[in-house]
This record gives sequence, C-alpha cells and structure tokens, in this order.
Amino acid sequence: MIVAVGWDERLARAALSRICEPGTAAVSLAVSEGGALAVLEQLRADRRLPGMSAEALAGVRERLVGYDPLDDARCLDRSGARIVCPGDAEWPQDRLEFGFEQCGRGMAPPWALFVRGPHPLRALTERSVAVVGARAATTYGEHVAGELALGLADHGATVVSGGAYGIDAAAHRGALASGRTPTVAVLACGVDVAYPRGHDQLLTRIAEQGLVVSEWPVGCAPTRHRFLVRNRVIAAMSSGTVVVEAALRSGSLSTAARAANLDRPLMAVPGPVTSAQSAGCHALLRQGAICVTEAQHVLEAIGQIGEDVAPVPRGPEFPRDALSETVQRVLDAVPVHRPALEASIARAAGVSSLVVQQVLPPLLVAGLVQRSDTGWRLTALGGGPARAVQ
Amino acid sequence: MIVAVGWDERLARAALSRICEPGTAAVSLAVSEGGALAVLEQLRADRRLPGMSAEALAGVRERLVGYDPLDDARCLDRSGARIVCPGDAEWPQDRLEFGFEQCGRGMAPPWALFVRGPHPLRALTERSVAVVGARAATTYGEHVAGELALGLADHGATVVSGGAYGIDAAAHRGALASGRTPTVAVLACGVDVAYPRGHDQLLTRIAEQGLVVSEWPVGCAPTRHRFLVRNRVIAAMSSGTVVVEAALRSGSLSTAARAANLDRPLMAVPGPVTSAQSAGCHALLRQGAICVTEAQHVLEAIGQIGEDVAPVPRGPEFPRDALSETVQRVLDAVPVHRPALEASIARAAGVSSLVVQQVLPPLLVAGLVQRSDTGWRLTALGGGPARAVQ
Repeated sequence: MIVAVGWDERLARAALSRICEPGTAAVSLAVSEGGALAVLEQLRADRRLPGMSAEALAGVRERLVGYDPLDDARCLDRSGARIVCPGDAEWPQDRLEFGFEQCGRGMAPPWALFVRGPHPLRALTERSVAVVGARAATTYGEHVAGELALGLADHGATVVSGGAYGIDAAAHRGALASGRTPTVAVLACGVDVAYPRGHDQLLTRIAEQGLVVSEWPVGCAPTRHRFLVRNRVIAAMSSGTVVVEAALRSGSLSTAARAANLDRPLMAVPGPVTSAQSAGCHALLRQGAICVTEAQHVLEAIGQIGEDVAPVPRGPEFPRDALSETVQRVLDAVPVHRPALEASIARAAGVSSLVVQQVLPPLLVAGLVQRSDTGWRLTALGGGPARAVQ
Repeated sequence: MIVAVGWDERLARAALSRICEPGTAAVSLAVSEGGALAVLEQLRADRRLPGMSAEALAGVRERLVGYDPLDDARCLDRSGARIVCPGDAEWPQDRLEFGFEQCGRGMAPPWALFVRGPHPLRALTERSVAVVGARAATTYGEHVAGELALGLADHGATVVSGGAYGIDAAAHRGALASGRTPTVAVLACGVDVAYPRGHDQLLTRIAEQGLVVSEWPVGCAPTRHRFLVRNRVIAAMSSGTVVVEAALRSGSLSTAARAANLDRPLMAVPGPVTSAQSAGCHALLRQGAICVTEAQHVLEAIGQIGEDVAPVPRGPEFPRDALSETVQRVLDAVPVHRPALEASIARAAGVSSLVVQQVLPPLLVAGLVQRSDTGWRLTALGGGPARAVQ
C-alpha cells in the first residue's frame, strides 16, 4: 500500500496537493492504491479518477494551467520546509492511516504533509494532545489552556494545536514556556504563510523549536473549507483532544467530532455556565466527553491503563477527622459559648455520663475542649473547620 | 409494615426522635417491624433492641431521665409544627422507604418527620430537585443556584435544600422568587430553630410559603453528625440532586453520595477550574455525574423518558450556512480586499470557470459579493461570522 518515496513520487504528491484539494476522497483513494505518479498522469490526460465528478476534473484542469512541478519543488526548498510522505521514517503511519469513512466527506486521509522544523514528526506525535478551542477566547480560557499545555509539555506530551488566536496560541505558548517538549502547529495554509498575521513571530518560534505542519503546499492561503479539513489532521495526529473553550458554533467542535469519530479520547474543560465561550465544552460534557481540569487528568485519559493515573483529589485534613464516632458525638455536644456539665453533654450526645467522663479528659489534652468552674466548652480548635461542615 | 397513626403511636415516634438519634439502624428497624410503642416500652424497661450496643442503651437511659411525652407533644403544638408518620397521607412513602444498606451506617430510614408549613409534604416531593452546595459559595455559585431554582420552580419542580448559607439559601430564594412552586427546607435541627441565626427570616418565609422539615424534634440543636444524617433525607426526598458548588471536602458531596446510593440522578454544575468551590463538582463530573447548566437539563434528567427533553443547544445561523459546498468553495476563494477575476477565483477554489460564472451572479443578488471594474470581492455580509470559523 505504501508506494515509494522516490523523488518523482514525492514531486507528484506535492503536485496533487497543489492541483487537488487535500482531503478529497477520490484522490486520496487513488493515490493510496496506485501511487501519486499514476494519478497525476491520469489527471494530466484529463481523465477522471474513480468517484471523481466531471466538475471536480474541470477544477483540476484550471489549476493545471501553467503548473510546473520543478518550480513548485524550488518554492518548497526556498521555504525551508520538507515534504513528508507515507513510507518516510517520520510519517506517523499509525496515526494518519484512518478509514475513509471515519471523518466524513472531503475528509479522506492525507497523502503528504509539508513540515517545517527540526524534529521528526512521528516521534512528536507518539504521546501528543490536541489542545484546541475558540479564537474569541476569554482570559480564563487562555489561562487554563496555557497552564494545561505547560503541564503536558512538562510531562513529555506534545501539545498539538492550530496556531490560531485565542486558545490555540495560549496552548502553543504554554508548551514553549515549558521548553521540555516541542509543540506542533497544524495549519490550514502553507507552512510559510503567516496566518493569522499577528502570529508571524509565534509561528516562527514554533518552526524553530517545534514543528509547523500542513497538507497545503507553501504559499497557499487558508479558507473556511481548509480549516475544517485541517481539523481532522489535528485530531488524528494526537493521542487525545482537549477542548478548552468553545462557543456552540466554534470550529474546534469539528476537531472534537473528528476525535470522537477516530475513537480517540475526547476531553473538555468546564467553565462558568454563564460564559458563552464554555457552552460548547459543556455540550461536549453532556455528550460524554471526559471532564478534565488539569494536565494529570489528560495524561490519565491518553495513558496506557494503569499508567498515568491522576491522583483522586482530597480536601485538607482536620484534627477532628481522626476521632471515633462516639468521641465526635461527645465533642458535637460540647457548647461553643456557655459551658455545660457532663450530664447535660451526655443527654445532648445521647451517650452515657460514663462515656462523657472518659472522653473529655483526652479532648482537654488534645486542646479541643476547655474546662471552667461552670463546665466544659469548646476551644477554637475543637470548633474548627470540620465541625460545622454539613 | 406501616403500623398505625393513632396518637399513642405518633407520640411514641416523637419520643424516639427525642431519646434516640434519628437514622440509628437498630431503632429504625425495630420501629418498622413492631411499631414505635413497643420499641419505646422496651427501652423504658432498659432492654436493648436487636443490634443495639450497651453503650447506646446507656445513652437512651440518659435522655429518658425526666422525659415526658405529653410535655413534648405540647412543645410541638406550640411550635405550630406537625408530626408526619408512615401511613399518613402526606408521608412520601415511595421516597423514604429506602433500603437499610443504601445509605450506610447511622443512615437508616426515618420513622417520623416534623413539618412546618401549609402544604402536604408528599405532593411537593413528587417532582422535586435537591439543589445543594457549599456554604462558602462564590457570587457565581449563588447566581447559578438562584437562576436554576427559579427555572425549576417556574416549571413546577419543587426545590429541596438544607436552609444553609450560600448555595442552599440562593436556591430557596430563587424558588421563592418564582412563586410558582413551594420550596422545602430540610433541617438538621428542630423546625422551630433559627439555624443559622441569619436565616431566621428566610426560614419563616419558607415555613409560610413552602415547608420546613426535620427528623429532629422541636428545640433540637444541629450537630455535625446530624447534618450528615439529614443529607440522606434531602437526597431521598428528591427526584434528583444537583450540586451547584462544592469544595473537595464540602458536606454537600455527602448528599451527592446518598443520591448516587439511592440510584437517583446525580447532577453537577460546572464552574471555573480555577475555583476551589467548583472542584467538588468537577470531581463528581469525572465520576459520572450529569453535567447540567440550566433548569431544562435538570428537568430532562429527572423526567420520564420522552418527556422534558432539553433542546440540543445550537449556535446562531448565518446566511452562508444555507449554501451548497461548491458555492461555499467559490465564496471562500473570493478575496476580501483586492478584487479578483473569475479565472483566478476558479483556480483558488479548484472549480471550473464555468461554475464560477454560474455561481457569482446569485451571490451578487444575495449581497454576499460585489463587482467592480477589476473583478469580484466580498461584501461585509459575505465575509461574515461563519467565514473565518475554524
């Protein structure tokens, strides 16, 4: 099934990325069956691939006008990016060979990726988490995304995101701040295109310290359709997907849907129910996504069974907690303000006076009760935090 | 199994509530088997009930000193409260007859309830929701609890809570603000006791417009143990339990655990992961509690199958959404700023020039694109919200 990675095949895959839309099922299927060279020859001969409409062939014809594969290769070289194909050592085979039906129409597996950065792609995707969310994020969302990504990178998990404003940027920045594990930006445009413009510097840093990846050749501009197609690669390349903030119509929900289709753990971070930017996350939680509030929860979800189990959270311990039930009942019956005699404490507690006489002296030593001429009452410690808990 | 509600049996149950701790398994079991009169006689004769320790009997002996059942009945009358027993029309039989093992030690079913207020208890519990949470609630939590309770009461669901500061108070107040369905406060002290002191007025209002309920006789003070025992009644009396805010050691988590034991729907409201007061809710969500963000979600969870189904949330619709995929691709390829010719748009979209020529005029009519001497570009509407979504 994997054909070859000779330069002619490689150039043909790059050409197909330029003249067809990545994600197109007819092209992806034909390439995986017979290789890109044969597909390219067929298209140049103006012959439809199986499953390809006449209209789609007409679109290819438009893009073939004036197309020069060697010129395209020179553009790629100049950009400092490389093309990675199935069969290459760094192609994340087990991640990107998903079924043709798993992601829906126009969402077929990629036949090549353009990559900028100093790391082999495959190694970075082995233990990786997509951290995605709204561009119009809140300060809360950006804070949480940054902390989560920092924690993941600190524990050796690669943070994968889309390089967009908001949650994506906060996630990349958190991972960069850790510095322990490179971060991967998957774009819906060429890896040399600064989109959004304001992320020129951020994308340059990611390309230097991590990886910038795309299915679209250098120079390509992003479109709405491309963002949706790109999202399946973010989900597929990652061991699991976390949505940090998302409005009900956020594009990051499409990444979430892809992760679920691909049977990868889907996680969502809760937020205030009063925030529209958390409504998408809450909808995911209602549909069965795993609730995560810290990096350990994410590591547990993507980890092997028995590994990376997040500790069960516990509240603080109080001195009272160590006491037996009877002793606690006596202590409950000791007044806060007006001192009481032993018989009255026994009646209030529903225990015998004998028990009260036995229990009070050790409580006195422990500093939980105090004694006066008129009886017993609690100290501040005895009336402490656990007492009034309901 | 239900004995009688003659006045002697009724007085005996009130007496047992006073001299034994409600929730004690040995007493609850003996009462359900042979009635309270027989149990009271046995205790007066200083004979242990099956499963009762010598120490427990000694505690009963202390409380029997000077106890006068008729005096107790006069106290109850003076408070304006009534005693409700199994067999009474307003006893919520199906709710309170839970198994002896379901709630754990010291958590046996109640043998009587003291009730203050103008409504029959049973009718109010038929479609009811426990809304509980931290006393040390945040403004966020109180806001959400109030809105949730208002929505529930507006839809005819009784809001049950514990009358405490924080979430409980916000829930009761929200229900009172609706005015459509009475609210029920279940206390861990006598129904005539203003605890906490600051809720004197609130509890009076609830007793006037709803119900104040307790297992403990009038005049009894709350203790830590009693709060925990009380929580099982809150959970049992309700069709489902919602935790709005809870720290990791919050007492409301004990109500949640009881609801889960009793196989009632357990729900939690998410909040900021940066808030310690939401950490308990998030822990519940991770353990499988239903994520709820509005009253409709709660009604769906407690409703019959097919009834009260909450609408699936949807984001706003945009004009672009109605377009076919091909038309969207053309629209994506139309530039925002510098006008482009049809051939260039066709290449960018990967469709034929013919399609572009067919598609652009209707888009012009729809106001999504505009035409100039140098070509086509988007209008503000065409470049609208859905366009840049990723």
